[in-house]
Amino acid sequence: MTQFINKRENIVTEAVDGLLRMSGGALVRLDGYPHIRVVLRGDWNKSKVALVSGGGSGHEPAHAGFVGAGMLTAAVCGDVFASPSVDAVLAGILAVTGPAGCLLIVKNYTGDRLNFGLAAERARAFGLTVNMVVIGDDLALPDLPQARGVAGTLLVHKIAGALAEAGEDLEAVTAAARRVAEGAKSIGMSLDTCTVPGSPKEDRIPHGMAELGLGIHGEAGVEQIAFVDAKTAMQAVADKLGAAMDNRPHVALINNLGGTSSIEMSILAQELIASSIGKHISHVVGPASMMTSLDMHGFSVTVYPVEQADLAALAAPVPIAAWPGLSSIKPVLVERLPDGLTPITPLPSEHRETREFVIKCCKVLIAAEQDLNALDAKSGDGDTGSTLAGAARALITAIDRLPLSDHTQLYRAIGLELSQTMGGSSGVLLAIFFAAAGDAASSGLPMSGALKAGLNRMQEIGGARLGDRTMVDALAPALDALDKGIQSAATAARAGANLTATLLKAKAGRAAYINAKQLEGHVDPGAEAVARLFESLAA
Amino acid sequence: MTQFINKRENIVTEAVDGLLRMSGGALVRLDGYPHIRVVLRGDWNKSKVALVSGGGSGHEPAHAGFVGAGMLTAAVCGDVFASPSVDAVLAGILAVTGPAGCLLIVKNYTGDRLNFGLAAERARAFGLTVNMVVIGDDLALPDLPQARGVAGTLLVHKIAGALAEAGEDLEAVTAAARRVAEGAKSIGMSLDTCTVPGSPKEDRIPHGMAELGLGIHGEAGVEQIAFVDAKTAMQAVADKLGAAMDNRPHVALINNLGGTSSIEMSILAQELIASSIGKHISHVVGPASMMTSLDMHGFSVTVYPVEQADLAALAAPVPIAAWPGLSSIKPVLVERLPDGLTPITPLPSEHRETREFVIKCCKVLIAAEQDLNALDAKSGDGDTGSTLAGAARALITAIDRLPLSDHTQLYRAIGLELSQTMGGSSGVLLAIFFAAAGDAASSGLPMSGALKAGLNRMQEIGGARLGDRTMVDALAPALDALDKGIQSAATAARAGANLTATLLKAKAGRAAYINAKQLEGHVDPGAEAVARLFESLAA
Repeated sequence: MTQFINKRENIVTEAVDGLLRMSGGALVRLDGYPHIRVVLRGDWNKSKVALVSGGGSGHEPAHAGFVGAGMLTAAVCGDVFASPSVDAVLAGILAVTGPAGCLLIVKNYTGDRLNFGLAAERARAFGLTVNMVVIGDDLALPDLPQARGVAGTLLVHKIAGALAEAGEDLEAVTAAARRVAEGAKSIGMSLDTCTVPGSPKEDRIPHGMAELGLGIHGEAGVEQIAFVDAKTAMQAVADKLGAAMDNRPHVALINNLGGTSSIEMSILAQELIASSIGKHISHVVGPASMMTSLDMHGFSVTVYPVEQADLAALAAPVPIAAWPGLSSIKPVLVERLPDGLTPITPLPSEHRETREFVIKCCKVLIAAEQDLNALDAKSGDGDTGSTLAGAARALITAIDRLPLSDHTQLYRAIGLELSQTMGGSSGVLLAIFFAAAGDAASSGLPMSGALKAGLNRMQEIGGARLGDRTMVDALAPALDALDKGIQSAATAARAGANLTATLLKAKAGRAAYINAKQLEGHVDPGAEAVARLFESLAA
Repeated sequence: MTQFINKRENIVTEAVDGLLRMSGGALVRLDGYPHIRVVLRGDWNKSKVALVSGGGSGHEPAHAGFVGAGMLTAAVCGDVFASPSVDAVLAGILAVTGPAGCLLIVKNYTGDRLNFGLAAERARAFGLTVNMVVIGDDLALPDLPQARGVAGTLLVHKIAGALAEAGEDLEAVTAAARRVAEGAKSIGMSLDTCTVPGSPKEDRIPHGMAELGLGIHGEAGVEQIAFVDAKTAMQAVADKLGAAMDNRPHVALINNLGGTSSIEMSILAQELIASSIGKHISHVVGPASMMTSLDMHGFSVTVYPVEQADLAALAAPVPIAAWPGLSSIKPVLVERLPDGLTPITPLPSEHRETREFVIKCCKVLIAAEQDLNALDAKSGDGDTGSTLAGAARALITAIDRLPLSDHTQLYRAIGLELSQTMGGSSGVLLAIFFAAAGDAASSGLPMSGALKAGLNRMQEIGGARLGDRTMVDALAPALDALDKGIQSAATAARAGANLTATLLKAKAGRAAYINAKQLEGHVDPGAEAVARLFESLAA
């Protein structure tokens, strides 16, 4: 599988550089590429307890993406899925640790424990005070006394980070971190393995199966289960978590393992609250990509029984885009639909001349049905004539329901009739034309002005411009000439319609997709309909 | 491909419900499921200009994820990749529009234009003031006069949203939205197609190829190019964008199309700044998933020539987790490495008794080489004896360099020697043991106390507990007995070592992976080494 990378050996340095470039100066790094890759807060002055985390890369935005005031002071980035060296960790500690000391937050993997542990010893030899908390929140492997550290690490970063930023001392920050590390429990599920750069993808999870309790480095899950749907999948996760939960309110951290779409994550979040443990979840962080496993199509859920002080620490705002914030779980509020969705039926009224005018127009369109269909067959599916004739017949049928004596209302009523009987794009566009004309008429414009306002709106919405080989090519010049009389308008409409036969490239409507040669010499059926209307009115 | 969904027809309502549940009450929805899916700000009081956007779903977090103060007032969610109905849009407009009016922000697709356009007309018939801006930022299809609307829409949401929130009137908000819509240019690239729920995945892009200029609904790109690496891919995108840019400073919005890993996005961001258009990019939004195409393994870049007022609008903070914020592009700051990475070589000093003690210990380990290897072969790769003997020989060679007269420094120096000569986990753990013992000695603890502090630290980092079948099983009882004399310590060490032969399940170290039966009756080699050391010292 191809990936958006360059040389495999440069992945981490290039990604760190990208993160730094996008940070606007909020993040800096230590010298020492490629052996030492340490990302630091740009505004750090060693006046408070420093928090250093890190580990293998491939879990972005963890950990470097969580460096900033209120979370990490520094992140030490190893190669993809490999612990950073003792020297790299030591460089990070020495760079950020002042008199207030430093807390190392380490996920429970042998390499990380040893390298962070030895670096801590070396730092202590310089007189620095360094504590270390090891996170083992993964519930997947109950028989191992040393559970892996996964996304629960984020809760430690945030809660300890808030305390450190508030000026608490190292012992208080460490105690909080230990408490969260002991209380947080996580488990992951995936539908596919991740793609390790430079390695062929392992096809371990068969189609239709999901893996439960997998690690964040491509380690196989403890079991494969048949995947039914999002609800069943989340309930399997909830069953594992529920066994480790009590009746206290919990915060849930919903983590995208990297390749799950946002719409799936929202569905999973909904299912978590609907699951058997949902009633014990009072707050959530996410869903978001926080502790990923490259592009893994999976998720993890972490639960932690929060106390009031933890909630304040989790809710404290941080200038870190990757941290999604804390939300409380509340019932969904549903507002009632506004009035006005059912269009108001206008009061019918009589106006003999208007009735005759409308019927005359309709009859023109009915008479032109076959000709217009034939023209449309050159560029479309040959139904323009039938569509217009059908609408015209419907309008004649509806004539007694129309507000014929009130032209403003009449425009709108015709628009409504057309939108209900014509269907398709042309029905909507004509509905827009008449509705906008009605609006214009209501503000006092005469007929030609009202119709021009309708045309403008229709063009704005439909996008057709003069010369695009649509009805606009006849209608626009006709309306422009209308103030000089109906005869002038008819002449202009005909000239405009005829011109469409020479426009070799349609730019709007369905004819846009047709080869230019097929159009040559044929008038656009919409423009022809307009021309015939005006010609019959002028006759 | 399986996905974390339930019934296909419920995807959008379930995802909207998930979004609402995670919003902590910040978002509410209109009644009318499933036909009408409108997400609104929970705190809206119609006192300012309302911004309504939306369109087909499948682009999450767009658009509902951007509802909130300073961005959208409401989002109307259609089915996946399908425009919402006129009624749904009208319901959204009617629900949020007050005397200040409403701006519709619509991506340029026929269905969206028509449905939002007609809904606007209907809303105007109720006396509401409704403007509409159509976004067509996609550069991919230069021959089409109506470019598609893609991720540039986000810039319109943010800039218009900031003005509306600041109390600007509808004309000012609309003018700003138009200006951004005209200035924003985007293009996308992908290595794979997206997975439309319920449809088989289209395998359109061959392995090793990338598609340039693709749409956000699975529409094919304008060309397929050979994929070389991230740099070349981004330069192809930059070439397209550069043709539409001038020398003004631009903001770039870097959008994950859904399935690209965070580490790839950081590399791509770095390559954008390194590309031929990088020098014209003064600010960035992202990289982040903003306008996705479900799970597409691709990205898009939008560029827009920003003026000072736009920057203020883009930078205005919003309580919307999906909005990644604005950053300025600055040179990467590299801090010099801290002092202390090269360990300080202690001053050598002589102390005859200590010299003899150290050499005696080393000779015990050298003599035990074969026996310890044989024991290790029962559970590991048979090299424990050679590893310890090698370290012992190295220590003898180094004896003239050691600070023999300063016990505090001596512990640390031995730890450093061991970490440099032993390698592997055991070298790091012994280095931690001696470093911690040195720290304890420096604070005045006597030898037994210092060694116990070392043991505690080694256990904390290594995780081995008493009974885990490691050297701890001999060392811990020996140190506990040491105050009663070396003879007691030796007896305790031997008893502890012998006990390991009855511990059938190793819980730490490599032996943890071995079948219990293989271990029975064999003493752990590390524990045996400790017992022999104490026995020889007591002899």
